[in-house]
Amino acid sequence: MLGDRAMFLQNAWYVWGWGHEIATGGPPVGRVVVGHPIVIWRSDAGVIHAAEDRCPHRHAALSKGRVDGDRLVCMYHGMAFGGDGRCMGMPLVEKTPDVRLRTYPVVESDDWVWIWPGDPAKADPMLIPKAFGIRNPDRPMRSNSIEYNANYRLLHDNLCDLSHVDYVHETTLRQASGAYWAQSKPRVTSQPRAIRFERWFEQADMPGAPGQKVDSWIAYDFHVPGIFILHGARFPLGTAARCNYGPPPADIEPLVQNIEQQAVTPVSSNRTAYHYATGLIGDSPEMTLKLAQRMDVVMAAFEEDREMIEAQQAIHDLTDPAVPMFFVPQDQGPFLMRKLMNRLIREERNQADSLAAC
Amino acid sequence: MLGDRAMFLQNAWYVWGWGHEIATGGPPVGRVVVGHPIVIWRSDAGVIHAAEDRCPHRHAALSKGRVDGDRLVCMYHGMAFGGDGRCMGMPLVEKTPDVRLRTYPVVESDDWVWIWPGDPAKADPMLIPKAFGIRNPDRPMRSNSIEYNANYRLLHDNLCDLSHVDYVHETTLRQASGAYWAQSKPRVTSQPRAIRFERWFEQADMPGAPGQKVDSWIAYDFHVPGIFILHGARFPLGTAARCNYGPPPADIEPLVQNIEQQAVTPVSSNRTAYHYATGLIGDSPEMTLKLAQRMDVVMAAFEEDREMIEAQQAIHDLTDPAVPMFFVPQDQGPFLMRKLMNRLIREERNQADSLAAC
Amino acid sequence: MLGDRAMFLQNAWYVWGWGHEIATGGPPVGRVVVGHPIVIWRSDAGVIHAAEDRCPHRHAALSKGRVDGDRLVCMYHGMAFGGDGRCMGMPLVEKTPDVRLRTYPVVESDDWVWIWPGDPAKADPMLIPKAFGIRNPDRPMRSNSIEYNANYRLLHDNLCDLSHVDYVHETTLRQASGAYWAQSKPRVTSQPRAIRFERWFEQADMPGAPGQKVDSWIAYDFHVPGIFILHGARFPLGTAARCNYGPPPADIEPLVQNIEQQAVTPVSSNRTAYHYATGLIGDSPEMTLKLAQRMDVVMAAFEEDREMIEAQQAIHDLTDPAVPMFFVPQDQGPFLMRKLMNRLIREERNQADSLAAC
Repeated sequence: MLGDRAMFLQNAWYVWGWGHEIATGGPPVGRVVVGHPIVIWRSDAGVIHAAEDRCPHRHAALSKGRVDGDRLVCMYHGMAFGGDGRCMGMPLVEKTPDVRLRTYPVVESDDWVWIWPGDPAKADPMLIPKAFGIRNPDRPMRSNSIEYNANYRLLHDNLCDLSHVDYVHETTLRQASGAYWAQSKPRVTSQPRAIRFERWFEQADMPGAPGQKVDSWIAYDFHVPGIFILHGARFPLGTAARCNYGPPPADIEPLVQNIEQQAVTPVSSNRTAYHYATGLIGDSPEMTLKLAQRMDVVMAAFEEDREMIEAQQAIHDLTDPAVPMFFVPQDQGPFLMRKLMNRLIREERNQADSLAAC
Repeated sequence: MLGDRAMFLQNAWYVWGWGHEIATGGPPVGRVVVGHPIVIWRSDAGVIHAAEDRCPHRHAALSKGRVDGDRLVCMYHGMAFGGDGRCMGMPLVEKTPDVRLRTYPVVESDDWVWIWPGDPAKADPMLIPKAFGIRNPDRPMRSNSIEYNANYRLLHDNLCDLSHVDYVHETTLRQASGAYWAQSKPRVTSQPRAIRFERWFEQADMPGAPGQKVDSWIAYDFHVPGIFILHGARFPLGTAARCNYGPPPADIEPLVQNIEQQAVTPVSSNRTAYHYATGLIGDSPEMTLKLAQRMDVVMAAFEEDREMIEAQQAIHDLTDPAVPMFFVPQDQGPFLMRKLMNRLIREERNQADSLAAC
Repeated sequence: MLGDRAMFLQNAWYVWGWGHEIATGGPPVGRVVVGHPIVIWRSDAGVIHAAEDRCPHRHAALSKGRVDGDRLVCMYHGMAFGGDGRCMGMPLVEKTPDVRLRTYPVVESDDWVWIWPGDPAKADPMLIPKAFGIRNPDRPMRSNSIEYNANYRLLHDNLCDLSHVDYVHETTLRQASGAYWAQSKPRVTSQPRAIRFERWFEQADMPGAPGQKVDSWIAYDFHVPGIFILHGARFPLGTAARCNYGPPPADIEPLVQNIEQQAVTPVSSNRTAYHYATGLIGDSPEMTLKLAQRMDVVMAAFEEDREMIEAQQAIHDLTDPAVPMFFVPQDQGPFLMRKLMNRLIREERNQADSLAAC
């Protein structure tokens, strides 16, 4: 599993999980991210820290430890660490041991905890994509985390080709969206560290309003290394044409909007975490109820994805790696995302090789 | 697991399962047979088809798909296939993609679904052994399928030496048979693609009739690649001698008969499926009840086998492969069957090598 | 898993389990010890035997067999063995097969069953450490066995540095002991095949007697290949000083005593069995109740150890083997024990190599 690390992009901000999973002064939490065991904790002062989840003393899991003021204490034999990873003492050891934990750059942004497993010198917080945040009272979201027994690339493929909605999510997201996703292609464009998807569905159904037709706009970016940020908006019929099928201008008020923030975080080569939230924006008084209903649909839909993707992984495991996939037009998104990820991973390796050769 | 395939005979008819497991127009079913993921479905017209369980598009499992008329539709992105494996279209793809699934020869015979994982040109249906079929109203059978965490050769050994009945099945099959299996050897003869076992038990107990003694005839063939077809018949005392200990002639009416059809189908090197049915023939009015009771005994007995064989596999996994087994006379059956399988596998490999050298 | 054997010391007495786990004439029991599958049984005459758990015939597990008088009978096809491993016959085999099981030296001592997986010629029973035995009516003990998903060395480390009691067992053993284990170091000395640990806790709490202070003496040997034998005794305040902080002389009567016998037995490289018992000695009439309460504490504490050590193993599995551990004074015990084990394993290998070179 250690060898798995080489398959992942290291210089990237990964979503470790939700900020509310770590209580101030509360128990530290350990998770494996792209092969790195990482412990996250908040000091009593509320500052978040990330470090390798391995005490230098006997390699115990610091996530079984305890936060004590501004220190993280290993609960195997008591070695204590500051947020900078420096050892702050240990019972029976007179001189404070000159040892330190590897720490990881960590940032809290839009209610996600982001960590950077690669070179800390490159950890530019400006590279963190903007999401919505789940605690904004103006646009409440509901959140969850699940794990897939599958390689992260199968999840990327899934999120970069939503034509699967008509098949995998026939009675869930397909119906909730009021549109047919496999009957037309989105516009797909490459961004420096993302792939952008935009489309109009004309004459879409207005959910919860039988018979009412709307024009529906869907736009999302799928950012390196696996961050999905979607904005959906429904407008009166004719809006798509009036916008010449481009993005709706800010001065046209949507009837209703939905927002999604999802993060694909590899654990190991065959296990992947998925942290997601869904939200609705609109002036309906029943928005809270509607959001709960939408979350039910989303949770059911991601179980549908999981079933499909885990079966796909099982087939993959029985398949000669030389067997190619068959390219069709709707694979443009998955293709561009794989290409982008491959390029970044290759560049990272070349750089590591050049450094090694110096 | 992919590498496992080389250990199996490929040019053979394997029992994939029972015909009643596949409904007309109903959901396709996926199973791994000798390392091949295979999906089976029946078109709306009732025709059975077998193909690799991997959509050429993104390698999704077609067994998560849906039958639509004469097409199998992948429920990931909608690629559709005919029974011949040819792609029949896909949303958003104008020209039907020139791609096809690998299909497998498939035959339904005696209520089993047989597939041929090897060279289709060699898939001669005449090589399918004759079984009884479980839907014949004159001789009803009860059926089941289980799986063992063991290599198929341990199941072959088990079925080719029934002296184990006295030990493993002491209170189940031993008692139900009215005979002692480890006190005499059957006559074992080699057939072109099977090993034949025949024996008389004189003075056997008549099951369900305390004190009544009979002569009991047991004959079975164990066919390549793991098909067990048994016929048992009980006769009045003296019949064995009258037949000069050879097969009973057709004009002697048995008192009661039992029939068994069992199939050993490797999944992987350490997992094996077992599809079996048991039946009784006779003029007793309580035959239905007796058959239900017999099925209970058989199911209990195969759990006994499973416990023994899985423990044997676990010991094997801890054993130096150089440690030999100790040959005793009752190993003649297992020995001949292993020899037959080894020869066929060797021939298949040599042939593949010759072709590769051309 | 077979290759695992090389990592273990072979010429040593390992605790296979408790004597009461094997009934006279009752079912044999199979367990894997340092990679060897071993079956233990008692003949009808009560003699205990140990042999490889693999019938020479078809490699079935003899632990699925049956004791019949002085024979162990394989319940696959009936091959029978004497306590010396010699085959004693088999159905249908006229001449008794000239085959024998590998037997293992086996000794019952202090209610443990000890086996010697290495060279039988070296199996000197004098090398078996003295424990307490759980059936002595003067000092009753309660016993249990659990298994860890971890390498045995992590359990050795744990038992050779009890400073972890203050952290891992904060509310269980720490409290029950009335002492703080991480505030002073024990005296650690090397014995030929053990490491000895001795210490006084002055002004310790007397358990069950709030406010009462005592001097508490703790001494234990951790013997090769993983046997922990502890004696604890509480004395009136001042005794430690009166003894000049050396072992208490036999003529000073302790107020209360506790005894522990624990055995670490590797199964495989990542699985380890742990057989333990705890006892109290003293004149309190409620000793039986107190012992039950102590056993509850001990069982809870070993679950705490299991959680910590299994997490440590999981971190280890994600760690580059080149990452060192950081040595602190309390690692003297683990260090000496690892050194002793390493030396013995190295000597064993060198000897094997010399023999092979002859």
